[in-house]
Amino acid sequence: MDGECNLVEDRMSSDSRIEYDPLGAVSVPLDRYFGAQTARAIENFPISGIAIRSMPFVIQALAHVKMAAAQANFDEGLLSEAKRDAILQACQEVLAGKYDEEFLVDVFQGGAGTSTNMNMNEVLANRASEILGSARGQGRLVHPNDDVNRSQSTNDAYATAVRLSMIPASRALRDALAVLASALNDKAEEFGGIRKLGRTQLQDAVPMTLGQEFAAFATTLLEDCDRLIETERLFLEVNLGGTAIGTGVAASSSYRTRALGHLAKNTGLPVVGCKDLLEASWDMGAFMLHMGLLKRTAAKLSKIANDFRLLSSGPRGGIGEIILPALQPGSSLMPGKINPVAAEALNQVCFYVYGMDTTVGIAAEAGQLQLNAMEPVIVFSIHNAMSLLRNAVLSFARACVEGVQANAARCEAHLTSSTAFATELVATIGYEAAAELVKEKLAG
Amino acid sequence: MDGECNLVEDRMSSDSRIEYDPLGAVSVPLDRYFGAQTARAIENFPISGIAIRSMPFVIQALAHVKMAAAQANFDEGLLSEAKRDAILQACQEVLAGKYDEEFLVDVFQGGAGTSTNMNMNEVLANRASEILGSARGQGRLVHPNDDVNRSQSTNDAYATAVRLSMIPASRALRDALAVLASALNDKAEEFGGIRKLGRTQLQDAVPMTLGQEFAAFATTLLEDCDRLIETERLFLEVNLGGTAIGTGVAASSSYRTRALGHLAKNTGLPVVGCKDLLEASWDMGAFMLHMGLLKRTAAKLSKIANDFRLLSSGPRGGIGEIILPALQPGSSLMPGKINPVAAEALNQVCFYVYGMDTTVGIAAEAGQLQLNAMEPVIVFSIHNAMSLLRNAVLSFARACVEGVQANAARCEAHLTSSTAFATELVATIGYEAAAELVKEKLAG
Amino acid sequence: MDGECNLVEDRMSSDSRIEYDPLGAVSVPLDRYFGAQTARAIENFPISGIAIRSMPFVIQALAHVKMAAAQANFDEGLLSEAKRDAILQACQEVLAGKYDEEFLVDVFQGGAGTSTNMNMNEVLANRASEILGSARGQGRLVHPNDDVNRSQSTNDAYATAVRLSMIPASRALRDALAVLASALNDKAEEFGGIRKLGRTQLQDAVPMTLGQEFAAFATTLLEDCDRLIETERLFLEVNLGGTAIGTGVAASSSYRTRALGHLAKNTGLPVVGCKDLLEASWDMGAFMLHMGLLKRTAAKLSKIANDFRLLSSGPRGGIGEIILPALQPGSSLMPGKINPVAAEALNQVCFYVYGMDTTVGIAAEAGQLQLNAMEPVIVFSIHNAMSLLRNAVLSFARACVEGVQANAARCEAHLTSSTAFATELVATIGYEAAAELVKEKLAG
Amino acid sequence: MDGECNLVEDRMSSDSRIEYDPLGAVSVPLDRYFGAQTARAIENFPISGIAIRSMPFVIQALAHVKMAAAQANFDEGLLSEAKRDAILQACQEVLAGKYDEEFLVDVFQGGAGTSTNMNMNEVLANRASEILGSARGQGRLVHPNDDVNRSQSTNDAYATAVRLSMIPASRALRDALAVLASALNDKAEEFGGIRKLGRTQLQDAVPMTLGQEFAAFATTLLEDCDRLIETERLFLEVNLGGTAIGTGVAASSSYRTRALGHLAKNTGLPVVGCKDLLEASWDMGAFMLHMGLLKRTAAKLSKIANDFRLLSSGPRGGIGEIILPALQPGSSLMPGKINPVAAEALNQVCFYVYGMDTTVGIAAEAGQLQLNAMEPVIVFSIHNAMSLLRNAVLSFARACVEGVQANAARCEAHLTSSTAFATELVATIGYEAAAELVKEKLAG
Repeated sequence: MDGECNLVEDRMSSDSRIEYDPLGAVSVPLDRYFGAQTARAIENFPISGIAIRSMPFVIQALAHVKMAAAQANFDEGLLSEAKRDAILQACQEVLAGKYDEEFLVDVFQGGAGTSTNMNMNEVLANRASEILGSARGQGRLVHPNDDVNRSQSTNDAYATAVRLSMIPASRALRDALAVLASALNDKAEEFGGIRKLGRTQLQDAVPMTLGQEFAAFATTLLEDCDRLIETERLFLEVNLGGTAIGTGVAASSSYRTRALGHLAKNTGLPVVGCKDLLEASWDMGAFMLHMGLLKRTAAKLSKIANDFRLLSSGPRGGIGEIILPALQPGSSLMPGKINPVAAEALNQVCFYVYGMDTTVGIAAEAGQLQLNAMEPVIVFSIHNAMSLLRNAVLSFARACVEGVQANAARCEAHLTSSTAFATELVATIGYEAAAELVKEKLAG
Repeated sequence: MDGECNLVEDRMSSDSRIEYDPLGAVSVPLDRYFGAQTARAIENFPISGIAIRSMPFVIQALAHVKMAAAQANFDEGLLSEAKRDAILQACQEVLAGKYDEEFLVDVFQGGAGTSTNMNMNEVLANRASEILGSARGQGRLVHPNDDVNRSQSTNDAYATAVRLSMIPASRALRDALAVLASALNDKAEEFGGIRKLGRTQLQDAVPMTLGQEFAAFATTLLEDCDRLIETERLFLEVNLGGTAIGTGVAASSSYRTRALGHLAKNTGLPVVGCKDLLEASWDMGAFMLHMGLLKRTAAKLSKIANDFRLLSSGPRGGIGEIILPALQPGSSLMPGKINPVAAEALNQVCFYVYGMDTTVGIAAEAGQLQLNAMEPVIVFSIHNAMSLLRNAVLSFARACVEGVQANAARCEAHLTSSTAFATELVATIGYEAAAELVKEKLAG
Repeated sequence: MDGECNLVEDRMSSDSRIEYDPLGAVSVPLDRYFGAQTARAIENFPISGIAIRSMPFVIQALAHVKMAAAQANFDEGLLSEAKRDAILQACQEVLAGKYDEEFLVDVFQGGAGTSTNMNMNEVLANRASEILGSARGQGRLVHPNDDVNRSQSTNDAYATAVRLSMIPASRALRDALAVLASALNDKAEEFGGIRKLGRTQLQDAVPMTLGQEFAAFATTLLEDCDRLIETERLFLEVNLGGTAIGTGVAASSSYRTRALGHLAKNTGLPVVGCKDLLEASWDMGAFMLHMGLLKRTAAKLSKIANDFRLLSSGPRGGIGEIILPALQPGSSLMPGKINPVAAEALNQVCFYVYGMDTTVGIAAEAGQLQLNAMEPVIVFSIHNAMSLLRNAVLSFARACVEGVQANAARCEAHLTSSTAFATELVATIGYEAAAELVKEKLAG
Repeated sequence: MDGECNLVEDRMSSDSRIEYDPLGAVSVPLDRYFGAQTARAIENFPISGIAIRSMPFVIQALAHVKMAAAQANFDEGLLSEAKRDAILQACQEVLAGKYDEEFLVDVFQGGAGTSTNMNMNEVLANRASEILGSARGQGRLVHPNDDVNRSQSTNDAYATAVRLSMIPASRALRDALAVLASALNDKAEEFGGIRKLGRTQLQDAVPMTLGQEFAAFATTLLEDCDRLIETERLFLEVNLGGTAIGTGVAASSSYRTRALGHLAKNTGLPVVGCKDLLEASWDMGAFMLHMGLLKRTAAKLSKIANDFRLLSSGPRGGIGEIILPALQPGSSLMPGKINPVAAEALNQVCFYVYGMDTTVGIAAEAGQLQLNAMEPVIVFSIHNAMSLLRNAVLSFARACVEGVQANAARCEAHLTSSTAFATELVATIGYEAAAELVKEKLAG
């Protein structure tokens, strides 16, 4: 594969230009900002059809890393003011979403993120060159490797970006969880006076209120918001400046300090450098904990969805203590049937999130020596999980929880017909005498 | 939610019509074939943004079920010839891909597939009505429930379709695996004369050839092709005619026999009816086995990718017995580095498939009483896994395996410098004496 | 660690002898049949405290492999008649359970099963030597490597044995599943006349009988018995004679044919040789499929347990259509409470089996080059899963299913109060008119 | 099952007494302290053969809960001084390990821990009664429910105990990890001067030292020690006093405050009460996070084991940069082969821990309404994971890490023969010119 590379020729037709990388010449569509290596990567990974632009938090975080690096390289005398300014302007345009269509490499990609990093390097270099006066993709007034990627390796630039990308995505998920918790708490208040039967192991137990039941749902989700804040913090520790394997080859330690400073200032996030840069180059620990927490959130949401479905079962032959909004006819055959479809959709998203945790767990174990080459699938899986959870949580809150009604009469009937009273007698007449009373009531 | 429903009004603007379902009126875009329930479902499930049209095998199989049902309903005197012919024409048009844009419900949906089923019922009913002379979505000369869905429930029509949809998808995967196995076998032949060191537990063991190593890769994949043929057979057993829960309410047994006959004839597949229709209504067993087999295929592919990466490690500081094609520059920083990117992409797809198996396994356990409401996520996960595997396998075959070269000199050097000869002495001088010889050689 | 090895000295006290292996001398308890390498392995793997003797099917299958190898080695002129007979006698004694206490290596062990294989080689060699007249562990009239392990490597002898060990274990599981299916079918007959409400998505659907519900449970388990027969067949294909990596070094092909013949005859199992011995040396495919099937069985059992718990929920505030035997007081506090404890125990075993599938799936992917060193954890996990399932299934059948009673009155009341009748009207009055009727009845 | 219960009769022979519970009479071995409900539970759960005494941290924590409850009940005037003192003495004896043989219920048990709780209640009641002067199991001077379990339900007493039990187990794991990290750091210091080739994606990258490689291993494990301290804190929040479902029926709020105070004082742990007791009754969140962290630790350990195996591969045909201690002969056939058995055993334990995370994740999702009945399998799985990890980590540290040696010559040779120098030229001659140099060197 040395010499000419015409891999992308077919679909690029006549409106193309030639770009070069160390492996040779590549044909690139004339109107594109990306360059040779991006074109190769698009050809090399025809896997899922899902491009990295589907992860906007990643694109934005990577633009931030490039901005901070350009600033630090200028400070270090490694980049001219003109180049720096052109790169910064290009970064701002990326952050404004102006080149979303340029980030086309598949989310399933080999190379440990190199193609994502080069896609960004090339878009920024070509755009910055253009700002400095050359035709798009020609002249290389700004070089993707020697200027944009200066003092960096994919293994620190991409690694830093994907960690930072988790934070806004996690915050968005917390916002969604807070909406759901709030809807649940509103219902908890509304249902505060409705007495009902508490159940353990699906068996009649002791009295409680429907309000308490809903308040507990809210409590459990708000706990996860707190935990998410904690795992977000783990992503603030970044290996920028460690370059290829953490030894910092091709980057000075003063560059490192400056780059971190710019990054913190530009993003408003208190990023700090890792203490052991070699370990940070291969460790996927923060991703595992965050994904594990998402699985926990999924477990809780799925349990809530299960309870909604149980409590609304019937309407005649089930528990029927709550009534869910009728979102759509429930059956193509059975007339009048209404199903708990919002809860079921939530369940399925939760099961999918469990799958993503499996993927992340295996990929994290697959690191070897100084790097984990499987980081792209880890990043995609977690963003996928967060995005699905966010959408499902908001949809469940609005389409289901906000409209749920209590069937107070049924709550009361279940409580009254049960032997839930007996436990209150234990303190006075003892466990065995109370058990006798229960036996009599159930028999009678 | 009785009365008017304007959920979809916002984005449907002025060019819309009103359709009705038992919950009331719904605004539908004028140019669409789908109707009220599809419009509701699109609103109800804003989860992944991935529509069911992304699973063409499902759409096609469901059209086949509707076709067979229409034929059987005509045979039973439940549908006029005119209606039948209009429905059949509409089905043929769906099979030809004419209405791909109409299948817009999210793959994450509650309702156990009812929305997918109603999407198809509505598209076919509106198109068939149009064929019979009414304006699109008006007049209902053909009714989505009473005509297209006649004698069916989602729980048998959708269930049958999603099972049948697995068969062509699995065949396509087998084709891809055969391409890869063939490429590996070609290399096995090419490398048949290259002697090398066999390794167990990464330690030098006994002699073999590089050809044997590649042949074993092909063998293991062809075994999975055989196993796939076996799990495909499990999907030929369908519950069509069982309707809501397998008791066949609203469908005669003669309809059932006829519908199965038409389905078999139209598809060319030897479909048979399930013996216990109640069990078939909720059992997800065939999906679990098929998904488990896909996980096994992923395990084998990942192992092969791992071996490719190990054997090509270096080029100087590793094993380096094979040389992979240089697909793209390997590093944004390290010049001249080439990475095994095709193998790494394959690994990551395999890890994703492991995740899908987790999802399917949990969803399969979540069935309750007469149905498993989580079937949509099961179906999506398996099709997702098959599609990703197919693409990754073809890409790996073409971009990596076909261009792999042997480093025969290195193979020979490793063999010669090792103590692999010693095992052949065991039979003559005994295990312990041979062990002494090895100790001497390694020390020397 | 060359020279003397006193690792096991502490707990071996004064009553010990010295044995030797290529690494030097090891102290072994005087009364033991195992030797130096077993003693080392016991020291090397103080992990779980669960010894390989906990897997009797593995011990027995390995004894069978050794027996067949000794016979074939005699046929080939590689073993004297006296040695062969002594080894065969020792094998028979192992099969009779006489030396169960000798197999003490931990189930978690490195070395790809070498320690298990050497434990057997040493016990047989020392016992056979004793039979031939030497003191236990002295003289080595029969050598563990050169005689008992003659023409074998762990990688074919152990590999063959652990595959064969799956077959009787799987049969025992099938027997247990048949007992449960039979108990369910008995109840299906007993409950054949009890009409009840069928439910989909936990919502009232259409009529059925309690007998149909129980019959479907039996059907689904019997299907898995059929599938188990299929996966058992996969284990009949063995790599005996392939030795270290499948090239058959140190074993002739005539030995191979003879050994397989003896093995088939002695065990009564139609074992056959693998076609690609190199692939067979590292492939874990059969284990993955079998474990995947066990996960499917667990999914079905867990679903049945869930349904038992749902259907017996209440007794007043739930569905309450069946009554489970009262096995023990349900609560330390709530008098008279009875819980579905047998079903809950079954659920938990099923969840554990899901865990074992995860373990096997990861371990199977971890094979490298010519071997999978993780086979011991695969073997332990699958035997563990089968053993737990067998016990839980039998316990559930006897303690719960055999004693379950129907609450016919409640079944009838749920059916009558519901709108399950409406679906039967669809064929005559149409879906929409029937939906109106349902709306009226539920409101009324 | 009312009336007489002879379930345990067979193995209890003539030396038995009769005890009673609300379901009737049960035969109990004469010499046992446990009573009727324990005997029933032993019969009801013949699943794994692993008794709860295998989890000493659980037994001890439960004794602590009973002690605190007895003290608080006395404070509240609900228990006489004599009874309190007898119970406290019995608890102290349990803590001293005197009745380990009494805790015989299977770890796989239905009833949400009720059998474990009653096993403790019965042992303490019978022993306390004996202290007060009655014959063992006769007279019931102290009642298991009305005295020992006073003001408690399994759902708060057991729930509190199993959470507290995690803390000492986690500390023990941390101690083991610290031992391993220390051994790795010792080696890092020893290997500080050995220059070697760093590798990314198994390809030659840039220079580093072997000391850095080992230091990173230590770093990553010490991070997990820090994280473990954080998850341990989650277990300090307990629901004692919430009783059956968190409403505190049968327990006063002053009792609750006092019991928590005694518990904190007795254990020296800063336990606090949960804010939302209803949520705390069913939430498994802390277990999921802790188990997720154990999976992360397993991922790191497995990665370290993989690297040890890679770096020691060869000795001639692999990387061979480190030399592992020879623990045992590596092969039954191949003379002189030494395998990385300690690392392989560690890998397998890690894969098992992944399985336990699957089990916990599914069980946590299976909670319903006011309780999660699957808590026993969650507790067992996590303790199992911690115990296996602890043993494997200590064994790996001592048998493998402490004895590992560097092959400095080979490290140097790999570095020198590679093009790792090129990256240092990028800053001066640019990425593309450096790439040309590399091409020339590799070709030359």
